[in-house]
Amino acid sequence: MDRADKGLAFLLQYENVAWYEHGAVKILDRRIYPGTVEFVTCESHGEVARAIADMVTQSGGPYTAAGMGMALAAYEARDMGGAQYREYMENAAYTLSHARPTTVRRMESITSGCLECALEAREAGNPPDEAVRKHTVSVLDARYRKIGLMAEYLADMFPAKGTVMTQCFGEAIVGLMLRAAARRGLDIKLICPETRPYFQGARLTASVARDMGFDVTVITDNMPAYTIQQKKVDVFTSAADAICMDGYVVNKVGTFQIAIVAKYFGVPYFVTGAPDRGHAAIGTVAIEERDPALCLEAMGVPTAMAGVKGYYPAFDATPPHLVSGVVTDRGVFSPYDLERYYKEDGEGEYGAGFLV
Amino acid sequence: MDRADKGLAFLLQYENVAWYEHGAVKILDRRIYPGTVEFVTCESHGEVARAIADMVTQSGGPYTAAGMGMALAAYEARDMGGAQYREYMENAAYTLSHARPTTVRRMESITSGCLECALEAREAGNPPDEAVRKHTVSVLDARYRKIGLMAEYLADMFPAKGTVMTQCFGEAIVGLMLRAAARRGLDIKLICPETRPYFQGARLTASVARDMGFDVTVITDNMPAYTIQQKKVDVFTSAADAICMDGYVVNKVGTFQIAIVAKYFGVPYFVTGAPDRGHAAIGTVAIEERDPALCLEAMGVPTAMAGVKGYYPAFDATPPHLVSGVVTDRGVFSPYDLERYYKEDGEGEYGAGFLV
Repeated sequence: MDRADKGLAFLLQYENVAWYEHGAVKILDRRIYPGTVEFVTCESHGEVARAIADMVTQSGGPYTAAGMGMALAAYEARDMGGAQYREYMENAAYTLSHARPTTVRRMESITSGCLECALEAREAGNPPDEAVRKHTVSVLDARYRKIGLMAEYLADMFPAKGTVMTQCFGEAIVGLMLRAAARRGLDIKLICPETRPYFQGARLTASVARDMGFDVTVITDNMPAYTIQQKKVDVFTSAADAICMDGYVVNKVGTFQIAIVAKYFGVPYFVTGAPDRGHAAIGTVAIEERDPALCLEAMGVPTAMAGVKGYYPAFDATPPHLVSGVVTDRGVFSPYDLERYYKEDGEGEYGAGFLV
Repeated sequence: MDRADKGLAFLLQYENVAWYEHGAVKILDRRIYPGTVEFVTCESHGEVARAIADMVTQSGGPYTAAGMGMALAAYEARDMGGAQYREYMENAAYTLSHARPTTVRRMESITSGCLECALEAREAGNPPDEAVRKHTVSVLDARYRKIGLMAEYLADMFPAKGTVMTQCFGEAIVGLMLRAAARRGLDIKLICPETRPYFQGARLTASVARDMGFDVTVITDNMPAYTIQQKKVDVFTSAADAICMDGYVVNKVGTFQIAIVAKYFGVPYFVTGAPDRGHAAIGTVAIEERDPALCLEAMGVPTAMAGVKGYYPAFDATPPHLVSGVVTDRGVFSPYDLERYYKEDGEGEYGAGFLV
């Protein structure tokens, strides 16, 4: 087992991301990892949606959680009659896909598949909850295979020896890009801005990299410019919560700022993920604002005086002229030519849209 | 009393910044304010230097603390003979001025004045510790008068109604620019990036603004770009730890990054302070690196897994092409023409160099 495989472990295992079993969904609480390893147990699909809204899991996690939430909904509805069953499941699909406003389109691609799977299993006389769980795992497996391809194209953009800056936590792509780099024998150091207010960069991305044996350094979110300059960062990369067909990239707040700074220094910015046909243009994306109080505390400790306001946009939008390439499972595309991604393959709407 | 004067209170009072009395220097611990109001008591000038190094006080605070530390050194040396006394005081001046590497030139302008004052008082048969304290206060009063002028020139750059973004805590200039804005009837909202790792923006700048009755919003350090865009920020301003004669501005890490972003959006960046003749060019400034562990925690709570590294440059250097104007007590200067500041007045070397 090489150093990169060794670490592709805890944070990225399906069973830890979100797992349905015995009428409940268990989700690793990424808000407190790695300080505390604890699972949130949801006993209804509504609780799963709430856990997603509360950011118990994020990045790729909500897609897995939504699938497992649909399995749980199928369990909840097990004794209902036909029409009532369908309505219940449709409502569950709506509730889960709308848990957070910015990723509704991608979430729908998961929940609609699960809905169909549940109805088919019931028709065939198989337990729908188990069928939906299996379906979710097969979707995840397909997703991991695609992200594996994406990771190879991303590794093509890395130098033989150099430094890569990340932003927030891109889940599977983080582990798979590091595995690709390690298998190629690239000598890559990682620099992770901590990503306030939740510190996903410090807590999650840096943990995966460390688990995988990489040299990884955390900086605070005011340090990217000086660090790119002083540590000679070669590549900036992030995943995305939406890649609009007009080339705008929606991702964790701060991505835009680092992209501006990267451009200033002539450092390329590569975003990973498939273009979202559900978003023809940036105007169709609702940028979620979260509780401003979260910007007035850190790790649960208050930082500001009473009466001071907060502002917490969870995402920002990076315009295409700051994006050097959109790294997909089908190669690297110009942000100005994303239709090509779909032209080259017959895959249907949203087909690859939830690749985080 | 207008709303702006009311708040020019706690954080900016000499007695709270640093105060010598009865053989000790008391310094407000700004690392924990406003959550906790506590003073660190130093019983030797070495302890004062250590308090400065440990960031008990920052921004303009260390200059006050250094002066009060010199008063304490004079008290410590009270029974020494002539040559020994001078040597002790010279060593104290060195220790205090070198507490942090980036501001040595400015600190020397304080400690050398105090040294001279102590020797003169002793010669004249007056208690040197009291003389140095009085001297420090008179230097501070002169400094506040100059910063008051600076604040007026800065307020000239503000719109009648608009939004100003700050960085870190500029001490007196924060209070005085807000007072100037209020007296002119400007309708100014403040946005303060929190300024990791110590949260000076959230804890100190936002507190002064709030005390003074201003509408103030704290954001995390990854949000300036999106916030400048969405909240239509009109002006970005910061103080400086050094303004080199070649127009480079050394200030709390993150200033550089916001200046890049401000330029991207066409928002002007004004730095306040006098050009430092002690630094002909940026190459003469040592950028302090602090304990990397501080980037792996927040408000004392760990954020990263063991084995993850940190990197903590305390300052960065913003090049002159990103600086719209250097706002001094003698008007607003181009960063490319800072010699003019000294040509227009006969003031000696470092004369105004410690205006923060």
